[in-house]
Amino acid sequence: MISEKMYELGSRRSAIRELFEYGKSAAERVGADNVFDFSLGNPSLPPPREVTETAMRLLESLPPCELHGYTSAQGLPETRQAVADCLIRRYGASIRPDRIYMTCGAAASLAILFRALISSPDDEILAVAPYFPEYKVFAEGAGARFRVLPPDLVGFGIDLDALETAITPRTRALILNSPNNPSGAVLKRPTLTALAALLKRKSEALGSPILLVSDEPYREIVYGEATPYLPALYPDTVLCYSYSKSLSLPGERIGYIAVPDGVREGDRLYAAVCGAGRALGYVCAPALMQRIVAACVDLLPDIRPYRENRDLLYGALTRYGYECVLPEGAFYLFVKAPDGDSEGFCEKAKRENVLIVPGDGFGCAGYLRISYCVGRERIERSLTAFERLIRG
Amino acid sequence: MISEKMYELGSRRSAIRELFEYGKSAAERVGADNVFDFSLGNPSLPPPREVTETAMRLLESLPPCELHGYTSAQGLPETRQAVADCLIRRYGASIRPDRIYMTCGAAASLAILFRALISSPDDEILAVAPYFPEYKVFAEGAGARFRVLPPDLVGFGIDLDALETAITPRTRALILNSPNNPSGAVLKRPTLTALAALLKRKSEALGSPILLVSDEPYREIVYGEATPYLPALYPDTVLCYSYSKSLSLPGERIGYIAVPDGVREGDRLYAAVCGAGRALGYVCAPALMQRIVAACVDLLPDIRPYRENRDLLYGALTRYGYECVLPEGAFYLFVKAPDGDSEGFCEKAKRENVLIVPGDGFGCAGYLRISYCVGRERIERSLTAFERLIRG
Repeated sequence: MISEKMYELGSRRSAIRELFEYGKSAAERVGADNVFDFSLGNPSLPPPREVTETAMRLLESLPPCELHGYTSAQGLPETRQAVADCLIRRYGASIRPDRIYMTCGAAASLAILFRALISSPDDEILAVAPYFPEYKVFAEGAGARFRVLPPDLVGFGIDLDALETAITPRTRALILNSPNNPSGAVLKRPTLTALAALLKRKSEALGSPILLVSDEPYREIVYGEATPYLPALYPDTVLCYSYSKSLSLPGERIGYIAVPDGVREGDRLYAAVCGAGRALGYVCAPALMQRIVAACVDLLPDIRPYRENRDLLYGALTRYGYECVLPEGAFYLFVKAPDGDSEGFCEKAKRENVLIVPGDGFGCAGYLRISYCVGRERIERSLTAFERLIRG
Repeated sequence: MISEKMYELGSRRSAIRELFEYGKSAAERVGADNVFDFSLGNPSLPPPREVTETAMRLLESLPPCELHGYTSAQGLPETRQAVADCLIRRYGASIRPDRIYMTCGAAASLAILFRALISSPDDEILAVAPYFPEYKVFAEGAGARFRVLPPDLVGFGIDLDALETAITPRTRALILNSPNNPSGAVLKRPTLTALAALLKRKSEALGSPILLVSDEPYREIVYGEATPYLPALYPDTVLCYSYSKSLSLPGERIGYIAVPDGVREGDRLYAAVCGAGRALGYVCAPALMQRIVAACVDLLPDIRPYRENRDLLYGALTRYGYECVLPEGAFYLFVKAPDGDSEGFCEKAKRENVLIVPGDGFGCAGYLRISYCVGRERIERSLTAFERLIRG
């Protein structure tokens, strides 16, 4: 009577969500202060003050029927205009408001875009390990084959030789995520220029473009150089964005898909995005949040606390003997499991009420993801546990 | 490079959405006051005062990271508890909070539930004409065959003989919508008792339950008797609900799926719902709205203005010679096209800036849907146009 596939997906929750739920119940048992939950990317920085102020102003000033009414499926015109203008200002983007599609966050952006792209069960979507595990769920949910490039364990870049081999006539898209969840790596211009050349060459050989899907919820959370604007390097790039991290609104589900002018058959792809949103039951993105985005689109998060957390945790862990590449963006440390057994280590950590996620689900066994988007004091109090854990 | 199916869905927008967009541009041309937009079910009553008050209170009092943070995928525990309690209080329901799944509105509820149910392209979902056109999109989007029972043009009930014939071994679900969009009909207990008996008999013969999917966004918008609580008559019933109409929050996308205790293999179905939500990219329902629902779950809309609109419009149109069944719920009049040509009539009406939707898309050619969830004054000023239109 039910879909076994969906039953499996629903009964085997993602490892991250599982830990998140465990953390909530542990907090009830031993007190929230005694649980060191580094499992989820739930921003610890409040939204910029203007977000709350805008919400209050809208609630006080707009007629509620207008404020909470349906918007166009693609989003409010003023919101799409604001998003396009922001991309133009920040990156010199060539993008029109009628190629912006507001979504219920990055997960929705990806699920919708993949659904718009995939027309045969042989179609493939490629990702580079380590990758956000739900990519597989969204790709397979859209009917695609999901294939993964092995990780570059030196700097978490892209192994272009592996990519060269992995591309087949059925490759529809490559998804990139920079800054990366879970590694915190930020892709550099030389890598991306070489990647663009490879994709152009392959697209020409195949006779149809391989779409680059840039999943950029961490775009503004960088501690050094930002990721170059990808459509400028490779025109067949679609942006999937979320305000979850930059405006600290993860539970409100607001983001967008942007199909820049350079995308071949971009109007057709955009129409397919609209169709996919419809088929998946997305009527419109939450209206109040769309208006907040229109007003707050230019705000940048004050990421100093994240940087301080990174420095504190990275410094302490490497001092204890953990091995880790210094993350240049996002708010995750991707650490080698001391004995190579990431699942075992995470279980041991759980017994100390330290919740971290094994790298296996990210396509990178033997690693651990530690989300440091928490209060600094929580990191400080967790350090002795991390020290005990590596000493066995 | 793209899915042709999704392209078609996206480039041929629903007739309703198309008119909605036309209305917006017409308003810019001739002024909003001169457009009589009866196309969309966008509530004209503001949300109850408590909705805005709760939003303000939450924004002022809760730490914003907590307020806007991710919730569990199924929804906040307090929201699910409040929803279950409300169903128990109002209907004596047998339902647990851990069988409530908060969604981004009724469209999401249906898209997710269908996806959870369907495991083969031969699986069928049945609807009764007239039906909300997006049912077809959601059912086919989930990979099912969508089949429609012919309308009962006398009272817009259910033709049980037709249903008897239409059920096949591949029938997974029957979707009901009472009060009905577009007819405004409310299903009566004797019809539903007979329906339940038929479905039980058929389910037994097939050896697997036919699920009744009750799509009830208009549940509280009734001018006489409400629809009986369906799970009490037929235990294999799942509720799909939205607060779009009852709390006038259509753009905010908040609703739920409820799998009552009596549903066979209910826990497995609920898990599949969680899996389908994940596959479709629904991370959680908007967090602020979930908290508003927890606080406002018991509020009932003051539907007097809708009733007055109904009486005014029904009275005038029938006086002019239009034929129409008096709607007992929702906020639509479903009117016979005077010359039987609904599309032609709607085009003529459009030239008078009167926007109404042909019944064809609802599986009921020769009818017109008029949404009367607008200001009374707008109806009053539109009446001469309706009179002109029937006189030719």
